[in-house]
Amino acid sequence: MLGGGSWATALTKILSENGARVDWWLRSKDDVQHLLRTRHNPRYLSAVQFDLNRVYPTTDLEDAIEEADWVVLAVPAAFVQSVLDKLDRDALKHKRVISAIKGMIPAKNQLVTDYVAERFRLNRNQLGVIAGPCHAEEVALEKQSYLTIGSPDADLALEFCELLRNRYVRAHPATDLDGIEYCAVMKNIIALTGGIAHGVGYGDNFLAVLVSNAVQEIRRFLQAINPQPRDLSASAYLGDLLVTAYSQFSRNRTFGGMVGRGYSVKSAQLEMNMVAEGYYAVKSIFELNKKLKVHMPITSAAYRVLYEKVAPTVEMEILKEQLR
Amino acid sequence: MLGGGSWATALTKILSENGARVDWWLRSKDDVQHLLRTRHNPRYLSAVQFDLNRVYPTTDLEDAIEEADWVVLAVPAAFVQSVLDKLDRDALKHKRVISAIKGMIPAKNQLVTDYVAERFRLNRNQLGVIAGPCHAEEVALEKQSYLTIGSPDADLALEFCELLRNRYVRAHPATDLDGIEYCAVMKNIIALTGGIAHGVGYGDNFLAVLVSNAVQEIRRFLQAINPQPRDLSASAYLGDLLVTAYSQFSRNRTFGGMVGRGYSVKSAQLEMNMVAEGYYAVKSIFELNKKLKVHMPITSAAYRVLYEKVAPTVEMEILKEQLR
Repeated sequence: MLGGGSWATALTKILSENGARVDWWLRSKDDVQHLLRTRHNPRYLSAVQFDLNRVYPTTDLEDAIEEADWVVLAVPAAFVQSVLDKLDRDALKHKRVISAIKGMIPAKNQLVTDYVAERFRLNRNQLGVIAGPCHAEEVALEKQSYLTIGSPDADLALEFCELLRNRYVRAHPATDLDGIEYCAVMKNIIALTGGIAHGVGYGDNFLAVLVSNAVQEIRRFLQAINPQPRDLSASAYLGDLLVTAYSQFSRNRTFGGMVGRGYSVKSAQLEMNMVAEGYYAVKSIFELNKKLKVHMPITSAAYRVLYEKVAPTVEMEILKEQLR
Repeated sequence: MLGGGSWATALTKILSENGARVDWWLRSKDDVQHLLRTRHNPRYLSAVQFDLNRVYPTTDLEDAIEEADWVVLAVPAAFVQSVLDKLDRDALKHKRVISAIKGMIPAKNQLVTDYVAERFRLNRNQLGVIAGPCHAEEVALEKQSYLTIGSPDADLALEFCELLRNRYVRAHPATDLDGIEYCAVMKNIIALTGGIAHGVGYGDNFLAVLVSNAVQEIRRFLQAINPQPRDLSASAYLGDLLVTAYSQFSRNRTFGGMVGRGYSVKSAQLEMNMVAEGYYAVKSIFELNKKLKVHMPITSAAYRVLYEKVAPTVEMEILKEQLR
């Protein structure tokens, strides 16, 4: 498990409590020491206690990966490249790699799984993505959750599902790796734009219309970049979009809300002391779409607000005319 | 305008402020007198002030209808039959009738527009339905809202859209009268079931999965009862579902929440001093489905909790196994 955030913490809880050994790479020495001493991650889901006979926190990346059959990526998208580039190109040769990252490689506008396949010369059948509507906080509380493992390799998907399934987690396999991964990225754009709209003063009627139109925008984009039949009402797509867009605690929504209320992008980031994934997602998807030229009024509005400093009120006025 | 509730009040505001004359039938003499004296509906959206040169509140049903080109139905579904049965069978002969009711005729398991067509021998081209994600409270606050007018008659739909459009209301026509009307009924079942799940202790992860599966359940039902191609991500379907299922103020969700926490159906109704539309909707759709035999795990679970006194915890356990 690579990453020390809330999602990495939740997945480590699920996998280890199901009996898997988890070598857990965290960047922070302090956090690893805290985990070894107290069995809790000091920063995220700190109520969860880990069994150190199964969970091995470490700051040594190669050590964490060496013996692993599966490598689960759960670092922020913005850092995944700098983390993985430290590894030898053959380091993942015989591994199966599951991305739990809901963002793209910013400098490349590339899906995380595409980057991993390229960098480590992996076959697509070694790759999967974990998606579905799943607040890590609810996993910590053992609330009923549903996950989808997307992989072109049906066996890989099913095997990883088996590692996840327990009393409160249901998991099912799917084949649409790319579509699920793009959708997980794009839902952050929608949550962020919903935040902007809310910050400007739009209400729940508008948000419902925004999310409905978002499904159509995502569908158009997916059909352009990776055409195949898919039902976007499946929980890996729509469910994930809903849990993010309707969460009061979503970082993307909070960030968008601050921008909508008039904070500059910089000051919103400083105030939140972090970067919302959606901020990068907007740029990647917008830039990818320069070639595809799909009608994407929501992504375009967010792009102009975040990267071209157009006033949120102005962009929301333009956007509202394009929704129905 | 027939009805004195919040939706009738909101629609009367929109239509009258756009310049239409609205003869407004309310059942309560006190409310009519209060309106005539203070220009406010004492019970709903009481901040809204009406122009009595355009709005004519009355308790005389025939009087309200006599001169009208359009008749808008906005009484609770449970009462619409008893109200309309007072009218002569020819009373709506040359009218165009728009249903703003999000429920079915309980005794007949019949769509309101089907009942009206039958009772008053109207052509389907005289009928329409008004739908879309629209909290009346947000209309009162003039928050941006979107409405859809569904009618087999494109001119009728477009003309009524024109009557609604203003600075904060966008309206567009659609042809799928039945699908939109059924969906408006079914979304209350979903909100109610979401309330039950929440009352039992399920969280936001589960709600997102429930709503995603609900789209599929609604699609299956619509394809069985009225097969035609339709995009359920349009705001008249999905948007309406979202604004209801994610509203903290939804009566259906509140009612379901009380049942989920262990109130009996009767005591929940007494406590709320009203009946949630979804309560009747569950029965109507469940009974309609006895012939259709569509797989409807959500509606079935709600039915067994509300009408067969199965414990909510038991039904949610069964339901969770059927979702994905």
